[in-house]
Amino acid sequence: RIFHHSSTMAKSKFEYVRLFETEDRCLPNAWIVVRVDGKGFHKFSTEHDYEKPNDLRALSLMNNAAMSVMEEFKDICLAYGQSDEYSFVFRKETQVYSRRSAKLSTNVCSLFTSAFVYYWSEHFPTSKPLYPPVFDGRTVLYPSNQNIRDYLSWRQADCHINNLYNTTFWALILKAGLTPVEAEQKLKGTLSGDKNEILFSQFSINYNKEPEMLRKGTTLVRRKVPIALPDGGTREKSQIVQLHTDIIGDEFWNENNHLLTIS
Amino acid sequence: RIFHHSSTMAKSKFEYVRLFETEDRCLPNAWIVVRVDGKGFHKFSTEHDYEKPNDLRALSLMNNAAMSVMEEFKDICLAYGQSDEYSFVFRKETQVYSRRSAKLSTNVCSLFTSAFVYYWSEHFPTSKPLYPPVFDGRTVLYPSNQNIRDYLSWRQADCHINNLYNTTFWALILKAGLTPVEAEQKLKGTLSGDKNEILFSQFSINYNKEPEMLRKGTTLVRRKVPIALPDGGTREKSQIVQLHTDIIGDEFWNENNHLLTIS
Amino acid sequence: RIFHHSSTMAKSKFEYVRLFETEDRCLPNAWIVVRVDGKGFHKFSTEHDYEKPNDLRALSLMNNAAMSVMEEFKDICLAYGQSDEYSFVFRKETQVYSRRSAKLSTNVCSLFTSAFVYYWSEHFPTSKPLYPPVFDGRTVLYPSNQNIRDYLSWRQADCHINNLYNTTFWALILKAGLTPVEAEQKLKGTLSGDKNEILFSQFSINYNKEPEMLRKGTTLVRRKVPIALPDGGTREKSQIVQLHTDIIGDEFWNENNHLLTIS
Amino acid sequence: RIFHHSSTMAKSKFEYVRLFETEDRCLPNAWIVVRVDGKGFHKFSTEHDYEKPNDLRALSLMNNAAMSVMEEFKDICLAYGQSDEYSFVFRKETQVYSRRSAKLSTNVCSLFTSAFVYYWSEHFPTSKPLYPPVFDGRTVLYPSNQNIRDYLSWRQADCHINNLYNTTFWALILKAGLTPVEAEQKLKGTLSGDKNEILFSQFSINYNKEPEMLRKGTTLVRRKVPIALPDGGTREKSQIVQLHTDIIGDEFWNENNHLLTIS
Repeated sequence: RIFHHSSTMAKSKFEYVRLFETEDRCLPNAWIVVRVDGKGFHKFSTEHDYEKPNDLRALSLMNNAAMSVMEEFKDICLAYGQSDEYSFVFRKETQVYSRRSAKLSTNVCSLFTSAFVYYWSEHFPTSKPLYPPVFDGRTVLYPSNQNIRDYLSWRQADCHINNLYNTTFWALILKAGLTPVEAEQKLKGTLSGDKNEILFSQFSINYNKEPEMLRKGTTLVRRKVPIALPDGGTREKSQIVQLHTDIIGDEFWNENNHLLTIS
Repeated sequence: RIFHHSSTMAKSKFEYVRLFETEDRCLPNAWIVVRVDGKGFHKFSTEHDYEKPNDLRALSLMNNAAMSVMEEFKDICLAYGQSDEYSFVFRKETQVYSRRSAKLSTNVCSLFTSAFVYYWSEHFPTSKPLYPPVFDGRTVLYPSNQNIRDYLSWRQADCHINNLYNTTFWALILKAGLTPVEAEQKLKGTLSGDKNEILFSQFSINYNKEPEMLRKGTTLVRRKVPIALPDGGTREKSQIVQLHTDIIGDEFWNENNHLLTIS
Repeated sequence: RIFHHSSTMAKSKFEYVRLFETEDRCLPNAWIVVRVDGKGFHKFSTEHDYEKPNDLRALSLMNNAAMSVMEEFKDICLAYGQSDEYSFVFRKETQVYSRRSAKLSTNVCSLFTSAFVYYWSEHFPTSKPLYPPVFDGRTVLYPSNQNIRDYLSWRQADCHINNLYNTTFWALILKAGLTPVEAEQKLKGTLSGDKNEILFSQFSINYNKEPEMLRKGTTLVRRKVPIALPDGGTREKSQIVQLHTDIIGDEFWNENNHLLTIS
Repeated sequence: RIFHHSSTMAKSKFEYVRLFETEDRCLPNAWIVVRVDGKGFHKFSTEHDYEKPNDLRALSLMNNAAMSVMEEFKDICLAYGQSDEYSFVFRKETQVYSRRSAKLSTNVCSLFTSAFVYYWSEHFPTSKPLYPPVFDGRTVLYPSNQNIRDYLSWRQADCHINNLYNTTFWALILKAGLTPVEAEQKLKGTLSGDKNEILFSQFSINYNKEPEMLRKGTTLVRRKVPIALPDGGTREKSQIVQLHTDIIGDEFWNENNHLLTIS
């Protein structure tokens, strides 16, 4: 609404059509994940000259958009992003939008998209996007702590698998001069160890020394950080921090065990 | 996905979490409406100095964003917009995204938002938005032709009711010097006829002569238009046209009766 | 509830679990069908010595149970049954149970089952069922008149296909002495015409002269019938009648056109 | 289906209507409860001369019907009943009917109803029901162990509240000669302690000495029981046992801790 409604404002005889809207409240006491995914970003990344295998400008823009979402929705306790996707985890007990599924997915998806376009020029200063980029969104529920951890592990394992593949694939093309078809052929059926070996023996690349942001993706969490006060003292403030760390093992969760406990 | 997946790519043991996603296909043979609505646009319009009672730049930007959506989704046969909202009507038989509700609402909502930011500067050349604007989205089903007509009538009646109110409200403020509270007080309990009378007697405004875009909103439909060929002949091409006309009465539907028949 | 609750009755701290129930209202202005289906009735019919290929006692018991459902739910305008299944069509505008899907399916299914057991002895006077028979239920929505007609045509075509097959199958076994495996083998790949021919040439059975209840199933509709009054006059009363007629063609629907028009 | 289908059986052009059925799979890794509730049992209990405040025949018939359900569905690990309702708890990991909500609720509800009618004469030997009794059914999900315990606590607290009320209400009527209206009036606004006091001082009834089945309802669980073998040894067999015990406190759950752990 752009303008206020008077409570006595006339209602039309067509109002009955509102009854066709359906309720879609998420089951209480379950983790709510909203994941946004780039639509047609294989094409988009080519058309916008994303660097291969990873474009740091694009990743930092994704992180920037995700920060905007997390600043708006205080009930998002963790976000995880990689490639052209970002997952937002709402607290189990969140009551935002009465837990209505479509409200959550469309608001998160719209804000993410909006921020992506809005902040584009800060990360790609020399060019405007050729057309408006699009992300789809979905809401998924996870009942248990193990489930939500497995969900995030699934996305981080996906990040690892894809990034190892892409790093090798583009080394073969950019450094060894293979065509994409030849590179794909060479990697067909290879296991992780094979790709590590190719990288090391052919290109002297130790994959485990590659930047963590590329290998692990980006995890956003809130942290209490001390703020200096004029009187020389400090006070705590909640801030969103970007981590590029393993979230599959127990260590991260032990260090951040407030995430999985009801606040 | 930014990169291709090899079909032999490893799958992790966490894949089971995909089973937690739910199917949300819309009932076949029902009209699908996706409506996007500005989030907090009362505040947004004030902060961005929207002209009162209507800002033509803002409305043309809304129409521009809606055109982008309709160009992308060929199965949208009609769109209707007013104020900070736009409704997109998909053909009854559409199979786009397998009629999955969340796919439809998030894609439309994301593209609309993206285009709104992307084309902002063409309509507001002198300023950038202060922050990323957001629209929410929802999918609603209507089984019969009468229902979908009543839905659109509901939105157009809403446009009329609000615009008459706002035109009078802002005339009282901008031309008669009332405060917002005084203006609201004066309009409390008034009927349409009363507002028309105030406009005419106090401000010499004949409401029915106000621009149709403001009184009727904007309807987008596809039209076959003749395209001149180099050889002097013509061929037909489908084009999206903007109408500012009554869509409550029968006339529009008689003239566009292909809209309600299965193609 | 067996007993009244006082409105001041204490509520426990566990009441919050009610919030986990979900809304499941059916889309307005759509036909609601509840279909009940016998569970494991191939086995049930063998164990209870159903006559082959059709058992008239079993069919009349099914019809009796369906009559009970239709007498209870005044908003069921038509029911159609064959074999071990029955479909109940609620008026498009019904508000019974606020159109809640699970309420509709479980109530219809429970009453049908209950009546099936309750009236068993009237149709199978010499024996009790060996164990409690079970029917499952489902709610399906159909937006248009054509859809609901096609749904009923689907069930009646199914009745025809199955009954022709079964009539031939059991003639081969009971009259020609084939084993079930031989009979199935002989019918493999045959078309309707082939089965008609087998029936006629081998068994002198003209399939089209078989009882209509077997070939067409049973349709229940409400009819106004005249009731004689003591003073010699008559008044009209609504009564449920059983028809065994074609409901695929137009004739039935022309004669009963009130069924498809909003009352 | 009463008869087998040949895999080559003809399909009609109406088959498309099957696409209108919706998927309704329950979220994985959540407890599934199906609760059945007597429809109109206040009236039913009066018409069938149920003894007040509790009819032991009716309760044992309810338990009998519930046993039938639990014998059929091996994935029901616990059932709890009181008054005219019964709740069936499926194992979190159950895959029965692919966790489809309507399949679960209608099958459980139909079997419960069927068994209720089927076994009626064993519990009410002198009379047949006056008409087929009906139970509705619903499926509800609970994500955590605490939630499912709270659900069951809710039902048992309800049992306690109602039974204390009814015991006092009917004592006032049957023993003190009050009319129902007078009894209701007298109990208005009373707390548990007040009702206990009335029972004790007026009727010498120590409520805590009332039969546990009435105060606690009936809990069905499976127990391994030793079966004597011909050779003098024993083997273990799973059997359903009826308990009338507190399931709100920790004791029951500590003794039956296999119920809440994944098998």
